[in-house]
Amino acid sequence: MKKTKEKVNAAIVIIGNEILSGRTQDVNVVTISKWLNELGVKIEEVRVIPDMEDSIIKTVNEIRKKFDYVFTTGGIGPTHDDITARSIAKAFNLAYGYHLEAYKILEKYYSKDKFNIGRKKMAMMPTNASLILNPSSGAPGFIVNNVYCLPGVPSILKSMLGGLNNKIKGGKKILSMTISVKTVESEIAKSLEDIQRKFKKVEIGSYPFFRLGKIGVSIVIRSIDKKKIDDCYKEIVSFLKKKKIDMVGIK
Amino acid sequence: MKKTKEKVNAAIVIIGNEILSGRTQDVNVVTISKWLNELGVKIEEVRVIPDMEDSIIKTVNEIRKKFDYVFTTGGIGPTHDDITARSIAKAFNLAYGYHLEAYKILEKYYSKDKFNIGRKKMAMMPTNASLILNPSSGAPGFIVNNVYCLPGVPSILKSMLGGLNNKIKGGKKILSMTISVKTVESEIAKSLEDIQRKFKKVEIGSYPFFRLGKIGVSIVIRSIDKKKIDDCYKEIVSFLKKKKIDMVGIK
Repeated sequence: MKKTKEKVNAAIVIIGNEILSGRTQDVNVVTISKWLNELGVKIEEVRVIPDMEDSIIKTVNEIRKKFDYVFTTGGIGPTHDDITARSIAKAFNLAYGYHLEAYKILEKYYSKDKFNIGRKKMAMMPTNASLILNPSSGAPGFIVNNVYCLPGVPSILKSMLGGLNNKIKGGKKILSMTISVKTVESEIAKSLEDIQRKFKKVEIGSYPFFRLGKIGVSIVIRSIDKKKIDDCYKEIVSFLKKKKIDMVGIK
Repeated sequence: MKKTKEKVNAAIVIIGNEILSGRTQDVNVVTISKWLNELGVKIEEVRVIPDMEDSIIKTVNEIRKKFDYVFTTGGIGPTHDDITARSIAKAFNLAYGYHLEAYKILEKYYSKDKFNIGRKKMAMMPTNASLILNPSSGAPGFIVNNVYCLPGVPSILKSMLGGLNNKIKGGKKILSMTISVKTVESEIAKSLEDIQRKFKKVEIGSYPFFRLGKIGVSIVIRSIDKKKIDDCYKEIVSFLKKKKIDMVGIK
């Protein structure tokens, strides 16, 4: 049996002029990242690029060599600006045309008289791709090697992730702990830096928050090693006590 | 007088593990894009990268050569994970240390006894950078060549953009029109494709929406040429009439 990799990483490529122009707020990064965290896969880069063939081909071909998994979102619908499937076929130098299984799924989903040219286009992709089934609106996504192509509509994307759980081979799950404290960042900067230096394999983040008129800082500890998180937590608690800084939450 | 460039582009580099992990929802892309649209600058790429020096240096050095402007967000606070300023200095091979003007601003902002080591760190940056003033929380951002470094906290970032308006030399303003129609994408895919083919310099996007239980499609036309948008609009209206598809909004 193949040994599980300890660290597995991924990147997201968001394909869509509407995100770049500020017309649409992306929410898919949060959805995909949280889902992958649970599977032991860490997102290490995100790119947002326009609906342009050159740009999709270049980005995907660069990114797919650097990461274990790549997830694209957007551009697999029925209209002229949906060019992800064709571009991915070109990136991998694969035949692009009707995918037999996808065609059957869509033909069944729509009644025959409503299976028009636009809907048929959603069955066009690299012809030998594996499908990602779509429980909410028929049109499937697809997989070529380590590249997973998902739609851009958040609710549809979300509904498709569950079906991928057993296709993703993650590493150790990334654990995290968030300690919220009643202070400002500059008061704890030095102590946190010392602790980070001591715990090199733990990722310590510090994020100011403003909530209900109150200010504070969330200290986030992330690692695949529960023991290291606990040890790091103890050191943080100890300096907070020394500095008389109140904790207002742990999760 | 230098002739204004017709097209001016930009990229955003979001620096932050908290965005990659899905802990924090980015909202700065929408803010920056909308602001730049008004100034005639088009965002053509966004990258989200971790708080890692190598990654910041490599990304910024690649991106700054490709775009007229680069905006970074995040990593300029007082804690150990705020390494943007130091990394940008390294990327440009510039001296990193206390920025005289920034130091004075911060010294004045905090009373002398509260100007601690963490707060002083926020005055450390490429020593010859231009500052981006911060009307909401003191600590300035900075500019090196075409790279503009802003904080990650959305409300603070927002408050700093106004001060940059006369530093950005945009091209022609990108105009847009959104036509919302009561149909599904596949019904209009063919007609939109024909129109896109006819209007090569206009960017036509098609985005399904689900609002208050109703489905529809927003057709977005973008161009720097008002006349082309109007002509394109007329053709769209004409096919909608022919197909008896109702418009439900224009803006």
